[in-house]
Amino acid sequence: MVGYAFMGAAHSQGWRTAGRVFDLPLRPAMNAVCGRDATAVRAAARKLGWAAAETDWRQLIARDDVQLVDICTPGDSHAEIAVAALEAGKHVLCEKPLANSVAEAQAMVRAAEAALTRGQIAMVGFNYRRTPALALARRMVAAGRIGTLRHVRATYLQDWLVDPTAPMGWRLRREHAGSGALGDLGAHIVDLAQHLAGERLTGVSAVTATFVAERPLSDGGRGRVTVDDAALFTGRFASGALASFETSRAAAGRKNSLRIELNGERGSLAFDLERLNELSFHDQTEPADAAGFRRILVTEPDHPYLKAWWPPGHGLGYEHTFVHQARDLVQAIATGAPPEPSFADGLQVQRVLAAVEESAAKNSVHTPVPA
Amino acid sequence: MVGYAFMGAAHSQGWRTAGRVFDLPLRPAMNAVCGRDATAVRAAARKLGWAAAETDWRQLIARDDVQLVDICTPGDSHAEIAVAALEAGKHVLCEKPLANSVAEAQAMVRAAEAALTRGQIAMVGFNYRRTPALALARRMVAAGRIGTLRHVRATYLQDWLVDPTAPMGWRLRREHAGSGALGDLGAHIVDLAQHLAGERLTGVSAVTATFVAERPLSDGGRGRVTVDDAALFTGRFASGALASFETSRAAAGRKNSLRIELNGERGSLAFDLERLNELSFHDQTEPADAAGFRRILVTEPDHPYLKAWWPPGHGLGYEHTFVHQARDLVQAIATGAPPEPSFADGLQVQRVLAAVEESAAKNSVHTPVPA
Amino acid sequence: MVGYAFMGAAHSQGWRTAGRVFDLPLRPAMNAVCGRDATAVRAAARKLGWAAAETDWRQLIARDDVQLVDICTPGDSHAEIAVAALEAGKHVLCEKPLANSVAEAQAMVRAAEAALTRGQIAMVGFNYRRTPALALARRMVAAGRIGTLRHVRATYLQDWLVDPTAPMGWRLRREHAGSGALGDLGAHIVDLAQHLAGERLTGVSAVTATFVAERPLSDGGRGRVTVDDAALFTGRFASGALASFETSRAAAGRKNSLRIELNGERGSLAFDLERLNELSFHDQTEPADAAGFRRILVTEPDHPYLKAWWPPGHGLGYEHTFVHQARDLVQAIATGAPPEPSFADGLQVQRVLAAVEESAAKNSVHTPVPA
Amino acid sequence: MVGYAFMGAAHSQGWRTAGRVFDLPLRPAMNAVCGRDATAVRAAARKLGWAAAETDWRQLIARDDVQLVDICTPGDSHAEIAVAALEAGKHVLCEKPLANSVAEAQAMVRAAEAALTRGQIAMVGFNYRRTPALALARRMVAAGRIGTLRHVRATYLQDWLVDPTAPMGWRLRREHAGSGALGDLGAHIVDLAQHLAGERLTGVSAVTATFVAERPLSDGGRGRVTVDDAALFTGRFASGALASFETSRAAAGRKNSLRIELNGERGSLAFDLERLNELSFHDQTEPADAAGFRRILVTEPDHPYLKAWWPPGHGLGYEHTFVHQARDLVQAIATGAPPEPSFADGLQVQRVLAAVEESAAKNSVHTPVPA
Repeated sequence: MVGYAFMGAAHSQGWRTAGRVFDLPLRPAMNAVCGRDATAVRAAARKLGWAAAETDWRQLIARDDVQLVDICTPGDSHAEIAVAALEAGKHVLCEKPLANSVAEAQAMVRAAEAALTRGQIAMVGFNYRRTPALALARRMVAAGRIGTLRHVRATYLQDWLVDPTAPMGWRLRREHAGSGALGDLGAHIVDLAQHLAGERLTGVSAVTATFVAERPLSDGGRGRVTVDDAALFTGRFASGALASFETSRAAAGRKNSLRIELNGERGSLAFDLERLNELSFHDQTEPADAAGFRRILVTEPDHPYLKAWWPPGHGLGYEHTFVHQARDLVQAIATGAPPEPSFADGLQVQRVLAAVEESAAKNSVHTPVPA
Repeated sequence: MVGYAFMGAAHSQGWRTAGRVFDLPLRPAMNAVCGRDATAVRAAARKLGWAAAETDWRQLIARDDVQLVDICTPGDSHAEIAVAALEAGKHVLCEKPLANSVAEAQAMVRAAEAALTRGQIAMVGFNYRRTPALALARRMVAAGRIGTLRHVRATYLQDWLVDPTAPMGWRLRREHAGSGALGDLGAHIVDLAQHLAGERLTGVSAVTATFVAERPLSDGGRGRVTVDDAALFTGRFASGALASFETSRAAAGRKNSLRIELNGERGSLAFDLERLNELSFHDQTEPADAAGFRRILVTEPDHPYLKAWWPPGHGLGYEHTFVHQARDLVQAIATGAPPEPSFADGLQVQRVLAAVEESAAKNSVHTPVPA
Repeated sequence: MVGYAFMGAAHSQGWRTAGRVFDLPLRPAMNAVCGRDATAVRAAARKLGWAAAETDWRQLIARDDVQLVDICTPGDSHAEIAVAALEAGKHVLCEKPLANSVAEAQAMVRAAEAALTRGQIAMVGFNYRRTPALALARRMVAAGRIGTLRHVRATYLQDWLVDPTAPMGWRLRREHAGSGALGDLGAHIVDLAQHLAGERLTGVSAVTATFVAERPLSDGGRGRVTVDDAALFTGRFASGALASFETSRAAAGRKNSLRIELNGERGSLAFDLERLNELSFHDQTEPADAAGFRRILVTEPDHPYLKAWWPPGHGLGYEHTFVHQARDLVQAIATGAPPEPSFADGLQVQRVLAAVEESAAKNSVHTPVPA
Repeated sequence: MVGYAFMGAAHSQGWRTAGRVFDLPLRPAMNAVCGRDATAVRAAARKLGWAAAETDWRQLIARDDVQLVDICTPGDSHAEIAVAALEAGKHVLCEKPLANSVAEAQAMVRAAEAALTRGQIAMVGFNYRRTPALALARRMVAAGRIGTLRHVRATYLQDWLVDPTAPMGWRLRREHAGSGALGDLGAHIVDLAQHLAGERLTGVSAVTATFVAERPLSDGGRGRVTVDDAALFTGRFASGALASFETSRAAAGRKNSLRIELNGERGSLAFDLERLNELSFHDQTEPADAAGFRRILVTEPDHPYLKAWWPPGHGLGYEHTFVHQARDLVQAIATGAPPEPSFADGLQVQRVLAAVEESAAKNSVHTPVPA
């Protein structure tokens, strides 16, 4: 694993737990973690349960006891590490967004496709797909429970930048983060919207904003914010369905509020990450006098991933998405099946994000997403 | 009153009740109702409690015992009736949207402004402003409880057109209705967004769709739908705040789902018409460990309109907005104060709707709203 | 109508509105209202829309233009007025609880039964039965949608006595009010539990409390509270189902929180008066992976009382229960059908309340409710 | 650890994770697990991550590398194992309810008190106390945020026995399980009510029921159910506050529905285990026009246990209570501080359960809980 901060801790929990809960065809071993600060990475290895620590990701890749490289670094290093790992014959799991640019993502897809012919798996970490409620939503859409799709509406709101005195940081600089709320949060809802809908966006129209132009530096000066605080966009699907997206880090009181709703001719589905064990479903085919959105508590053995966990009504949390991701990746490696979401899926999301930025720069004009 | 269908019944309930609940400076008398079908209008007069029935709105306006004309007809007749009533020296209440075009609305504003100099009141029926929870929201925004505004997000969803076999009707023809979900539902959320924010939209970017192009006629044939089923648009305020709007009549399971949320630097407010006695408020200035969206049950004597009604916890319904509208209009007439919302407010909403349609026709490009 | 305070205003709204919304076989005329203070009752008559005012209820009953007497006074006068009115040949609507004692209620039932043979109707005002969502719940129970009943759980909580400095008043004196939260609020949930279940309680076990023993008088002194602040009791149905009840006026933040849930072998129903347009329904016969409590928005034309009101999604409020009560009473008078709930139903609730007080006085021992 | 079924898996997850998330003064080692079936326990050891497997709990206790014995067996073996382990000088964690009888629990308390003088810790597994939202609730009550307590109301409902054809099992036999819903679910809400209130119940009044008297055996016959399906009871606190409790395994649609609410003079708190990352708080001291139950998303670094986990808004699940339990137990062992909840706390809960059964057997008469 490369990187050991928030994402690194979450991934570690996933690797540590997956084989203890699910019956896996292969047993993951947490052999080495990598970070630039030798002292810190050794402490992290001890705390998180990695057998060894490295300070250079090239050394990590070179290790014989590493068959899978899990990339949890900021977006500007994804491409270089992932391509090198794939070329070195390793499987790769890469955090989202796949890269900071379409060009980087394209290079990663080429490397992944070549690697796949050698039996290597490359997966991008859109972990929310593994939330049982959203996996159930996908199953229900695929089974025709909502019929022809008309609308997708998705918001992903946080509030840690609503305070204008919150400090400057790398996530607010374009050169490191690629974009702001758009890449950090928007990438998730673009992926989910397309994954749940089972189809892709053909174009978008967008507006973005940076509400606070400068923020305090640790040295007492002020630094210029070069990414968006918020991005709003509409999207069109090939089928004619419409989508709306909004993401912001300045929505007071919304801590990690990812909401997504799909409306179809035969029904609707709605989800809220702050209540992640629930899925709302409206069945339009029921008699009107007894119809209504039902709150499915997604904790039944017949629900995705749930048979391995606790009895009905005993809910899961955020980190379980990483346990499920680890389980699905191990399954893919064992069977050689093409992984989902693939690097190609990650590239396509990147193309949507690029179209959003282009539209925002061109007065919101509708901007196609290349196929 | 002209028209006696859904809106006419709701307005009648308002006129009948306002003086029984509030202490009004003037007592409204329900002297005459007007409709084209003589038998039907007489039955409506009897049922709804109007003393007389007319079949020609010109006759209604000509009556000496009519000082206020309440227009509840489809949008294509608003301008003619309202202008004539104002020129005849009557006060006017006109249902929203004010007109089917900006040009008609401009003529109405001119007539209203001339009439105001003669002490006549002209008000447009954006009744949802009179929901106590939304009146409280406006009061809290004005008092600075949410601080500098960052986001408004509003949706107004219904589902009576989600079934592709639902029949053709006048609301689906542009020549009568002006537009579809946009004018019917979108007008409300545009008015509310601006009213609550206390500022106006400067431009919009929009996409609209008609999901079902033809619908069955009563004669067995098929009629072409010439209005939108759904409209999605983003908007910008002069202050730099962003807005998102979505309205549809094809959102399965959403019966009359008007939701609006405002996020500011110091707090957030959220409202859902399906739970109209509640207002959600998050106070960002509270200590983080005890902060959260609170559900204010808007039934206290200190809440707008509530002192005249029931004890705390005894909720109101949809029609009360019309009782409050009647009360506020009577107050305005008695005091001669300029009414809110005025015809000029109605015209401005019309300009936003026109900009939405223009943007949708021009590949979603950002389209300014004339001041 | 006798009495013109809170209940009088609510009943007036019911009488004024019922014929304007529903097609009634008889048209109610609001001929006279009665109260002891001549000035105040005249003002109330003017405000609420009653043609005449009386200061002695005997005079009211003696009027030829009064065929129905609507009793909205405190409980200690119900029996005398109701019996006199029935003996004078009038129909009677009496607010709940029917009386302050079982003996009074028995006398009222005798008078009502005698009157029924003369074609007179006597109804007790358990208005919450007329909430569309609860009428729908009753319909679903009767249709077998929840199967054999196992549990009823009901709470009715308010908070206007949580403040120990809230003043003394007649509602806190046993000689006027009969009991405290028990008769005021508990009567409603006992009636609803039995009405929805379709069966009667056979016995109860109870505890009551008065948290604040003395309260300030307007003269600066302190008065002794002689009624309960709260009552908790369990109940048993003949079928073996169990019930739990809790009512309090000292539940901080609960303004008018009447909640009731029924669990049966085939499903469950849940209701919350603070969201009175909604009914929650769980269908236990559905596949487990798609089951869950659904929120039925009770605003469809097929729902009880709703065809006469607004389109789907346009909710009603508290006072509509009185409109529906007026409508049902007029229907009963026109058809001569035995009314529901009858005085006998009111007496039976009184017997439950008496058993609650007896159990509370006897160390909570299970106390039978006489049949 | 003794036992490796549902509770064993949950405890294993706790032991495996605690040191990876929290900075612990001691590192737990998962040295041995014990079960009667040699094959099954070896498989469980491999799956759950225990280094060795034993088939006799006496052997487990005899191991030198075992300093802490974690008892996850049915209630009828708790006393024997716990007393033996304590006498052998081990620390003990014992699942709830502490025992199947007061006598057994008393013996366990004696052993624990003797052991404490030797520096051994004995804790009972009321894990829900470690839910961050409930730990926050306790903190707020202790800080006086709800003032003098008036009401506690708690329900714990499941539905796996609502189906009358659900099979017989050991949990339905008194000799193994001690009681039914009462001990399994009721023990939790009794502990929580007292823990959150910060005071103990002085007496109870109860009714219990077994709705389905016989259930199918695996051999085709029918077995007699000798425990309760449901228990309802009221309780009194020394302070005069009242409590209501209801627990059932026959509440259709309620999967694991533990709800608890406290009302005090200055505020109220409410919790629902199905939404375990949320705590509702009403502050009665706020101005009435802005007051309401606020939904605190209990995911902030200042909330109990949360600094070690994820950023705000990223929720935890059921099993985290076991991680927190492991962490708190390790802290207690390292510091020698008396543990909470102690065996004495477990005994006191047992006394409440015994009083419930006694009251139910004596016509619900109020039954004191011995101090």
